[in-house]
Amino acid sequence: MKVEGRNSVYELLKTDKEIDKVLVQKDLQDEASKRLINVIRSHKVKVQVVDKRVIEKESESKHSQGFIAFVSDYKYFDLEDILDGCKDKDGFVVVLNEILDPHNLGSIIRVCECAGVDGIVISKDRSASVNDTVMRISEGSLNHIKVARVTNINNAIDKLKDEGFWVYGAEIGGENIYNADLTGKLCLVIGGEDSGVKRLTKTKCDKIVSIPMFGKVNSLNASVACGVAVYEAVRQRTVK
Amino acid sequence: MKVEGRNSVYELLKTDKEIDKVLVQKDLQDEASKRLINVIRSHKVKVQVVDKRVIEKESESKHSQGFIAFVSDYKYFDLEDILDGCKDKDGFVVVLNEILDPHNLGSIIRVCECAGVDGIVISKDRSASVNDTVMRISEGSLNHIKVARVTNINNAIDKLKDEGFWVYGAEIGGENIYNADLTGKLCLVIGGEDSGVKRLTKTKCDKIVSIPMFGKVNSLNASVACGVAVYEAVRQRTVK
Repeated sequence: MKVEGRNSVYELLKTDKEIDKVLVQKDLQDEASKRLINVIRSHKVKVQVVDKRVIEKESESKHSQGFIAFVSDYKYFDLEDILDGCKDKDGFVVVLNEILDPHNLGSIIRVCECAGVDGIVISKDRSASVNDTVMRISEGSLNHIKVARVTNINNAIDKLKDEGFWVYGAEIGGENIYNADLTGKLCLVIGGEDSGVKRLTKTKCDKIVSIPMFGKVNSLNASVACGVAVYEAVRQRTVK
Repeated sequence: MKVEGRNSVYELLKTDKEIDKVLVQKDLQDEASKRLINVIRSHKVKVQVVDKRVIEKESESKHSQGFIAFVSDYKYFDLEDILDGCKDKDGFVVVLNEILDPHNLGSIIRVCECAGVDGIVISKDRSASVNDTVMRISEGSLNHIKVARVTNINNAIDKLKDEGFWVYGAEIGGENIYNADLTGKLCLVIGGEDSGVKRLTKTKCDKIVSIPMFGKVNSLNASVACGVAVYEAVRQRTVK
């Protein structure tokens, strides 16, 4: 959903609605616009400065005044909702560490739903959020899996550890994933397209596990890597 | 590479170059154009009829006369090249049954290269061919794995069987892939986005194996499904 115009965007910021980003027209010089940009930024909402023609193309009202906010129609879950769902069993949670591409996020949601994962945790900053592309790519699976968006991934991991989860980061340079024990309460941390699992997050992991590579390029797409790792856990957890 | 203009496209058809498709301008009424369209079709090359503005956008010479052929820079291997590479070991070949999306093809090439697959077989008809998108998505892995393009997938499977390969189709409704034996000479058949493994091809398979599903939507992206299946084979073939 799009919200357009200075006042409407300002009022939107006061609600608890999830704002994916705000498109702001380049070179706005008036004081009201400059003030609003600061307010948006202070709410830690992503600002994308674009040409006037992009604003004109995206605007549905034609009265945007150079401001178009994209509001997520998706209602995120809390980490507690995911933990509640894991109460009487060995839960399986996937934490995404800066997956930036909506196609990858959608594809990851899709494979996690197939695999019966109990929930996915993404971060507010530096992560693709659930938008129309993600919904489309997820092929409807988004309606059947809990996605929680948290301010701080590392705090979420601490919370999972407190609840008895083992935290495994999927990343190059670790133990062969096929030799690791992925049964029990499991939190699998999947790294982003560019940077993998971040340094600080890595220190939170009980173990780093790696998909063995036998080629020359040896670079896996993030959603494919997630699928391979998640399904190895599925194998260990379901096959006698 | 693009080849433009009636004569150039006509001459191109006489070579053994791999033509991905020919863009043809809509509503060409002159006899020479109509004749050429028939010649292109008789060569079983994909014709895509498009608006004049698409031709104008794609044309580099501005003298296309309404015909732009896209020639693959990729030199395909033969099935025999792949078989030669498997001579003194238990080969692992992946056959793609109508993968249509270049993104999926690129991503599949990428994961197969990582997994050390000996070669990929695609069909001339009803399959994405190796174009610029596939090259980009494969992240360079295309240079390190053999991709063969064959006229008939089913004949290629027969040939693989003659060479001692076990042919397993990855498709819903089969044996749990985690209970199947994927060691030895292995040909894994991956179905297309829309139709999965085709009926006739299925009858050629020694066994149908399935990735177990635990969700409600239970639909995997083709490249993710390929990654999961290929890596289960890798696990069985490498882990003691």
